[in-house]
Amino acid sequence: MRIAVTGKGGVGKTTLAGVLARTYADDGYKVLAVDADPDPNLASALGFPDEIVEKIVPLSQMRDLIAQRTEAIPGMVGQMFRLNPRVDDIPEKYCVTHNNVKLLVMGTVKEGGSGCTCPEHAFLKALMSHLILKANEVLILDMEAGIEHLGRATAKSVDAFLVVVEPGKRSIQTLKSIKKLARDIGIKNIFAVGNKIKSSDEKAFIIDSCDDIPVIGFLSYDENFIYADRLGVSPYEQSNKNVHEVKMIKEGLESRLKSTL
Amino acid sequence: MRIAVTGKGGVGKTTLAGVLARTYADDGYKVLAVDADPDPNLASALGFPDEIVEKIVPLSQMRDLIAQRTEAIPGMVGQMFRLNPRVDDIPEKYCVTHNNVKLLVMGTVKEGGSGCTCPEHAFLKALMSHLILKANEVLILDMEAGIEHLGRATAKSVDAFLVVVEPGKRSIQTLKSIKKLARDIGIKNIFAVGNKIKSSDEKAFIIDSCDDIPVIGFLSYDENFIYADRLGVSPYEQSNKNVHEVKMIKEGLESRLKSTL
Repeated sequence: MRIAVTGKGGVGKTTLAGVLARTYADDGYKVLAVDADPDPNLASALGFPDEIVEKIVPLSQMRDLIAQRTEAIPGMVGQMFRLNPRVDDIPEKYCVTHNNVKLLVMGTVKEGGSGCTCPEHAFLKALMSHLILKANEVLILDMEAGIEHLGRATAKSVDAFLVVVEPGKRSIQTLKSIKKLARDIGIKNIFAVGNKIKSSDEKAFIIDSCDDIPVIGFLSYDENFIYADRLGVSPYEQSNKNVHEVKMIKEGLESRLKSTL
Repeated sequence: MRIAVTGKGGVGKTTLAGVLARTYADDGYKVLAVDADPDPNLASALGFPDEIVEKIVPLSQMRDLIAQRTEAIPGMVGQMFRLNPRVDDIPEKYCVTHNNVKLLVMGTVKEGGSGCTCPEHAFLKALMSHLILKANEVLILDMEAGIEHLGRATAKSVDAFLVVVEPGKRSIQTLKSIKKLARDIGIKNIFAVGNKIKSSDEKAFIIDSCDDIPVIGFLSYDENFIYADRLGVSPYEQSNKNVHEVKMIKEGLESRLKSTL
């Protein structure tokens, strides 16, 4: 199963992706978590210790490899490059592992003015579509904020989009843009998750606003999640209630996907 | 004066940019607000009514113009294009005006899989560096979440970066990436603004975490701001306290820039 977690900036994508990955690992799945945000922090949400984080080689730093495969220099704007680079031999050694979750990081902008991340996205897209997953394997992609990745179709090969929203018009507007763009690239399973919920009114607001997008779960507003970020630890260890809610989301997702996959 | 508002997704960039623009307009400045986020919502933060929002022609829809000037087809990935398109004759008619604030919108991804927004960014960058501002004119750029715009150097020509942070490690990590990348492209004035502040402890955490970046103001956590988003109205009309805090930020910014401009 391949799941992309997406939504407006700051709604809680990385938190959900991190806790969901840990939840699948707890249930015996082999989990590959991919941080596809050029401003990456999935490692911390997964609870990776600093000494492992320091060892991560992001895809963007495999400069020679990407240049060779995409025929582009990573970071240069406005050049021609191959959109389907060869990726079948990308070795496992580029991943780091902790708590039974493997992590792959797309990587960041290393120098101001050095260009866009188009070649990295093309490389990641090819890598994602090439991976063959077994029944007990799960791929969780934590996407960048907003919608540019949908223009690039980086997550074209996933089985489902989980779009995180909060009780506010802006994140709902982003959901609607994502819905339209995701359908353009052939994604049929689009589900919403409501985050930072303080009342049943807010749940009703979200269900109402999501129209035909099924809302498969809610995460309650919890100060402990905020303190997890402040302390730099995984939210997985900070809020039993939210972890339980993520388990419910996982179950809802599985039962909905069972019929379509 | 040219100011870019930037930071991690969801920290409150658009809210600050919108209220700051209104505050400058109140003081008699001519304000041009530019929404440089491919997932745009500055119009609503500025309080533009729907009937004006519907009339906005985003830069990305001036497809023929961008194609002609950048020699690229907007939305195509991996093509060559001119990085310094001609922009000196872009007419005022692409802006809409309300409450004495002019708004220009870069625009969004119109179709999934249609490509990146590199040509639009190149066009906007050229447009921004070409504008000549008088003493009573202010340009406020609301940037996309995260840091990819710094690779593209879209905001290279601004006088100051206002980086919005909240009490948490992730937005501080983004601040540090922005600081490094902004200096790469020659931005000297980088200031932090702390948002969603609930206590003096949180202020201290932010001042501490920002190291050598001056924190020029704080915005208190205010449910009314959240309800502004839910109601789809401008936060400017929802919280006197926050508006007063933005005025203090504006004054702090002016006094700090006076010596360098």
